[in-house]
Amino acid sequence: MGNNFEARILLEPGELPKEWVNILPDLPTPMTPLVSPMDGKPVPFEMACAIFPKECVLQEVSTDPIIPIPKDLREIFARTYRPTPLHRALGLEKELGIEGDDIKIFYKNESVSPTGSHKPNTAIAQAYYAKKEGVEELVTETGAGQWGSGLSFGCNLFGVKCVVYMVRASFHQKPGRKILMRAFNAEVHASPSRFTESGKKFYEKDPEHPGSLGIAISEAVEHSLRSDKARYSLGSVVNFVLLHQTIVGQETKIQLEKVGAKPDVLIGCMGGGSNFGGFIIPFVRDKLNGTLSDLEIIGVEPKACPSVCKGQYRWDYGDTAKQAPILKMHTLGHNFIPSPIHAGGLRYHGIAPIISNLYNNKIIDAVMHHQTEIIEVGLLFAKAEGILPAPETAHAVKEAMVQALKAKENGEKKTIVFNFSGHGFFDLSAYKEYMTGDLKDYELPSEEIEKALNDPEMPTVDESALFPPS
Amino acid sequence: MGNNFEARILLEPGELPKEWVNILPDLPTPMTPLVSPMDGKPVPFEMACAIFPKECVLQEVSTDPIIPIPKDLREIFARTYRPTPLHRALGLEKELGIEGDDIKIFYKNESVSPTGSHKPNTAIAQAYYAKKEGVEELVTETGAGQWGSGLSFGCNLFGVKCVVYMVRASFHQKPGRKILMRAFNAEVHASPSRFTESGKKFYEKDPEHPGSLGIAISEAVEHSLRSDKARYSLGSVVNFVLLHQTIVGQETKIQLEKVGAKPDVLIGCMGGGSNFGGFIIPFVRDKLNGTLSDLEIIGVEPKACPSVCKGQYRWDYGDTAKQAPILKMHTLGHNFIPSPIHAGGLRYHGIAPIISNLYNNKIIDAVMHHQTEIIEVGLLFAKAEGILPAPETAHAVKEAMVQALKAKENGEKKTIVFNFSGHGFFDLSAYKEYMTGDLKDYELPSEEIEKALNDPEMPTVDESALFPPS
Repeated sequence: MGNNFEARILLEPGELPKEWVNILPDLPTPMTPLVSPMDGKPVPFEMACAIFPKECVLQEVSTDPIIPIPKDLREIFARTYRPTPLHRALGLEKELGIEGDDIKIFYKNESVSPTGSHKPNTAIAQAYYAKKEGVEELVTETGAGQWGSGLSFGCNLFGVKCVVYMVRASFHQKPGRKILMRAFNAEVHASPSRFTESGKKFYEKDPEHPGSLGIAISEAVEHSLRSDKARYSLGSVVNFVLLHQTIVGQETKIQLEKVGAKPDVLIGCMGGGSNFGGFIIPFVRDKLNGTLSDLEIIGVEPKACPSVCKGQYRWDYGDTAKQAPILKMHTLGHNFIPSPIHAGGLRYHGIAPIISNLYNNKIIDAVMHHQTEIIEVGLLFAKAEGILPAPETAHAVKEAMVQALKAKENGEKKTIVFNFSGHGFFDLSAYKEYMTGDLKDYELPSEEIEKALNDPEMPTVDESALFPPS
Repeated sequence: MGNNFEARILLEPGELPKEWVNILPDLPTPMTPLVSPMDGKPVPFEMACAIFPKECVLQEVSTDPIIPIPKDLREIFARTYRPTPLHRALGLEKELGIEGDDIKIFYKNESVSPTGSHKPNTAIAQAYYAKKEGVEELVTETGAGQWGSGLSFGCNLFGVKCVVYMVRASFHQKPGRKILMRAFNAEVHASPSRFTESGKKFYEKDPEHPGSLGIAISEAVEHSLRSDKARYSLGSVVNFVLLHQTIVGQETKIQLEKVGAKPDVLIGCMGGGSNFGGFIIPFVRDKLNGTLSDLEIIGVEPKACPSVCKGQYRWDYGDTAKQAPILKMHTLGHNFIPSPIHAGGLRYHGIAPIISNLYNNKIIDAVMHHQTEIIEVGLLFAKAEGILPAPETAHAVKEAMVQALKAKENGEKKTIVFNFSGHGFFDLSAYKEYMTGDLKDYELPSEEIEKALNDPEMPTVDESALFPPS
């Protein structure tokens, strides 16, 4: 059994990665561009710059294998929370009856950030670029509130105004998040709201409409386009967000090397794909170049919203109102509205194009778990390791347990590493419902998925026009 | 201005202190013993062991200047959260218009523990000793819930049952705490409750009685005395708790030395005195032996419950029902019921005898602040440093600001270090009330204090009988 004094592997602020890892040049099939919902052609550079900060647009399409992290950003990471610890999960191993060092479970602890998740990793970067480019306001959507509080925190550091449209289901489930965002000076609205045309459509039919990330994105994009000093900010899905998150995987690599561990399985939960992408990308490069050719990589989805496991790999709108760019990704259809599970951050109809590309090329795998299973596992983890996971994160914990128990049964040696993307201090209602027997489960919504995917509004894009003939 | 890459000062798990610092042999006047409420004589060893784990009783009266920390405990600290970071508060300094290195503000960040405060430092130790001595259940009270969740976490690590009586005012203000405690397997009751004779008296008159720490202590002691496999657990006040907390101050010393900083002012908030005591005691030894003779040490109290600033140094019951031992301390009277301020952890009528002794000997100082002032400062700190403080902790932040601004005005060089005892993720209702203008302030309750101190029930103890003639 591992040594307790080596169970929490720290890095000095000076060991912070100096670059982000850009996986685009490594992908086995070329990356599809963002496509305009208006004409089905790649979003022109100028138009993209009207939506996102310019530096982010450049990063979105960059083919440089590494991109330097500005020193100002590294300094902010250093003085606030990064590098984050990597833990050997000795308590969890014990709970699972695993002894000795044949099976090792590690987790990267992103819950130590000021807002409790990995989200500030890209929030700080986006707010930094916004400020530098004279943008005065960043507008965004949030599901469970992890992203909204991350961006509020990031914007506040640079004096950029932050406006957040929060999916109503989560707005009610997680009132603490709202207060935290306001503590960081943000303006927060429940979505669908009365404040945008895209929101009003739903709000007027049902002022208590639970909302979805798709609708909230529409509202945020619409709001941001009202002023040329405002930009839209995304907390997941697009390439530059996954790029910013690669700081997580890079630190994990250094930390595993420090204790001489070589990962066999990497696990993360998948909503839009940012914590999963940022965690795995530095290792994907190693898998593709043969350094870690046997590495298994598993993304975990909720059964109520299994974009990769049950979606189709095709072009779809990023949002419900069809205002945001069209993306080639695994999708359940932009009109699919997931059940109000507590893992609000995983309630998105699609997933990052990078993740879709990797899955389609069989470089990564995906599995699904039920809400009750993951909340049960969240409590078990709290008891074993002392940290209560966010419901999103509990998906990764569950799969790490499944993998560890399988290895135990088969007598295999295995090093399992998962990303602990956030804590559950703002998600206590989920645990409360479990304790009182009120937690709902949600079966696979097969019919709803089929209906959304067969919607005549699903877009088609002429791919032959996107790539120059080779 | 300090270097951002050196702004967060970390220690390796291997650098964890190996001993606790026992200040009893250093005190200028002898420490008073715990006295029995029944006969006014020192609590006999056997009786103390029926209340607390035996090892804690031995530590309570030990005169060894240092006491080894068991290796098992150090391992648990290492694999969960210790050592904790020390931060240079560069964001706060900037907010206060402080430039350069003449004035430096540092804070020790105890909010990174699994339950968000310094409380697990002693909880883990007490649960460890309980387990080792065959105790099956630890019973305690909690104000804001920091201590209750700390003990729930600690007990859960060792499979010891935990029962918590939570002051009703906080039980309602902080529902998250209750769920967190239950996540760690604890049994939680609002106090005053129907489950004890001491609680019933108040409960039957008013089932919504806001409660006090004094009443909750009575309930917990009564509950623990029902079984010889149960013991009472205290999260503050007594010597052995402050002893366990000295790990905080010792780490701070090492961290300050690492960056070549010498503290001029130490600041902490004071409720029962455990975070303040644990933080300052290693430095008090230096102040008394002349190594840091000019060090100023300031404890901060809420205006609504100023035990040191406005209390009397005299013998008083530790609890309302007069079941717990009598202590010589600064007290507002055991019948004083403080207003329901959000800083529930500071709502205690007395304070640790060690702190009282130090204050009476003019080794430390004390100040008071209003509830609205400290919540305002909490938001300012969140904006400047990215971490939302617990209302208790915000008292220390406020005084650090006062001291820094005073030094700035006087053109002094000053290094100010405060203990950031916990985060405010479970205290969001306080911040919400501030934002909506609903936060109440509470003036100095001079009349209530006078009444409680003049209560004919206040105990007297014949001190001449306690100490052998010299």
